[in-house]
Amino acid sequence: MTTPFGERVRAVLNERGPLCVGIDPHAALLDAWGLGQDAAGTREFGLRVVEATAGRAGVVKPQVSFFERFGSAGFAALEDVLAAARAAGLVVIADAKRGDIGTTMDAYASAWLAPGSAFEADALTVNPFLGVGALDGTFDLAQAHGKGVFVLAATSNPEAEPLQRSQSETGRSVSADIVSVVSARNAERGRTGEWGSIGFVIGATVDWTDAGLAAFSPAAPILAPGFGAQGASPADLHRRFGSMSPAVIASESRSILTAGPHGLADAIEARVAEYREVSRG
Amino acid sequence: MTTPFGERVRAVLNERGPLCVGIDPHAALLDAWGLGQDAAGTREFGLRVVEATAGRAGVVKPQVSFFERFGSAGFAALEDVLAAARAAGLVVIADAKRGDIGTTMDAYASAWLAPGSAFEADALTVNPFLGVGALDGTFDLAQAHGKGVFVLAATSNPEAEPLQRSQSETGRSVSADIVSVVSARNAERGRTGEWGSIGFVIGATVDWTDAGLAAFSPAAPILAPGFGAQGASPADLHRRFGSMSPAVIASESRSILTAGPHGLADAIEARVAEYREVSRG
Repeated sequence: MTTPFGERVRAVLNERGPLCVGIDPHAALLDAWGLGQDAAGTREFGLRVVEATAGRAGVVKPQVSFFERFGSAGFAALEDVLAAARAAGLVVIADAKRGDIGTTMDAYASAWLAPGSAFEADALTVNPFLGVGALDGTFDLAQAHGKGVFVLAATSNPEAEPLQRSQSETGRSVSADIVSVVSARNAERGRTGEWGSIGFVIGATVDWTDAGLAAFSPAAPILAPGFGAQGASPADLHRRFGSMSPAVIASESRSILTAGPHGLADAIEARVAEYREVSRG
Repeated sequence: MTTPFGERVRAVLNERGPLCVGIDPHAALLDAWGLGQDAAGTREFGLRVVEATAGRAGVVKPQVSFFERFGSAGFAALEDVLAAARAAGLVVIADAKRGDIGTTMDAYASAWLAPGSAFEADALTVNPFLGVGALDGTFDLAQAHGKGVFVLAATSNPEAEPLQRSQSETGRSVSADIVSVVSARNAERGRTGEWGSIGFVIGATVDWTDAGLAAFSPAAPILAPGFGAQGASPADLHRRFGSMSPAVIASESRSILTAGPHGLADAIEARVAEYREVSRG
């Protein structure tokens, strides 16, 4: 039987700690690493991050846009990086933020989550602007194959506040509505373990009270970008996420990737140790 | 000087009418057309739609997910379809609904809108869940190159209502806020023509009053999916969009594509004639 994604993540975080290494081959980093601004450069970048992460941390998150900008050749590079990461036993979260309706959304889900698909990952980030209900087909496909979905719920960029803190008919914020509806979906799906397989994206520096989320403690993984260079430290994990901190996947990109191809493995090891230190503290 | 996208669309709609032909090679249609469930099938499908549309209607809208599901090979097929459509002089709207922040969003914008990029289209659909402000870099890139952007504003699927009709701090609906902020962006950008180059996606069957949009008449193109099989007829265009109807790009997919590869050109011609009839009526 396929292990549900939520349970797999729980085991990996228990063993390896919360660090998720972002694979973000953006222009400045390709330059800094001495790699070409092309598909071959992104491929090399991605493979090096996978190699340095394997055996040190448990999760990687390739940022799809940085491959997409090189067209089909960039996507072929991404296929190699995804395959290498999965072969290394890492949990692979494709950060693509796809969102659509009906058969169109189903096609995105099958691109990233169907076993044997070219872009097969362990989980996909999705965008709920068209309604959480429009993602049900994606949740079904994920569940059938032990895959995960991370629904954007509350992001930390200031431009997002007017929309995400708007008030729905329920009197809750848009972010709270998303967390509430997705949590119900997890429950309906008859979780067998402690965590559901539909998680959330909630920024590391989001204030849960301001975002209308104070009442929630979802039993599902929380992908939290914004650790490292974007402002949150390992010590913030417990401060900000409280009782939910064991469910947090702490995503860091720049803070680790700027160590360069030769310093990368040491940077990851040091960071994993910091998170371990804090969780003992 | 590059013609601004808004002006180019205005000229094309004036000449050819509002019909936009969707390029949606989903599984059922590939079967119906006798094409393979693979990248070669989607390529053939896309090229036939382009061929049948050229000289008959002015706009095509490839649905990216149906290429994405075949991985990098599917994207290589999409490159061919995009290039053929642009070479045929069609206005090409890549329906990818991308949405992110910062350099990540910029990478999506450059993938689809930078001159010479592998996926170069004339316009891209984008998702504002992370804030309209997060799309400013995309608007800048589009403007610099005479490209267009269509921001999801109000969709017609019922699951979208709780979110899109939530009330922002301004007292307006989320949809109205998006239309308002984007309209301001068009104005700031010093449009030289009558229409801005940042348009909207507003479903053909959306009730503008229910959606909180009754007060708006944006001077920008409106991409309206939902004509044809999804419920809106050519006669509905004027009924639903009133004074804005000259700005509407009426997107149809299933209603035309089910005519099959041999009936496609006739189906497009008949539909273009219907829209012309209605606009004279």
